[in-house]
Amino acid sequence: MKARVHVMLKTGVLDPQGEAVRHALGTLGFEGVQGVRQGKVIELDLAETDPAAAEASVKEMCEKLLANTVIESYSVELV
Amino acid sequence: MKARVHVMLKTGVLDPQGEAVRHALGTLGFEGVQGVRQGKVIELDLAETDPAAAEASVKEMCEKLLANTVIESYSVELV
Repeated sequence: MKARVHVMLKTGVLDPQGEAVRHALGTLGFEGVQGVRQGKVIELDLAETDPAAAEASVKEMCEKLLANTVIESYSVELV
Repeated sequence: MKARVHVMLKTGVLDPQGEAVRHALGTLGFEGVQGVRQGKVIELDLAETDPAAAEASVKEMCEKLLANTVIESYSVELV
């Protein structure tokens, strides 16, 4: 089973990387880019075949390792 | 208009970061994690209102800056 995790900074948390990308896009001549937020996407190949168990363990992985839950939010999607 | 870009390493390209995450998950006691691939997700707030024009310019941003098209593939999604 495959799971996909999106980890993004929580709204309100400054995203220096996103700002850097926005600035660089402007330098390259791309106009109208009002905001950029950058996060992580993590694809996991799991031996688990039960969707509920897979989702529960991926959420636990997020809480323990994949996301810094103080400043980041995550979403889990089984693919 | 909002666009979301996923940038992932192409299949076959070694993903050291994914390997490190897989190893760390194993150390934390998570079994059955057969593979991990990590990429970027970039959310763009665009002033452009025409979907076709927005998609075209985001693809150009990917080609020029957001993705290293030698080793990475990208997908663009208007949200």
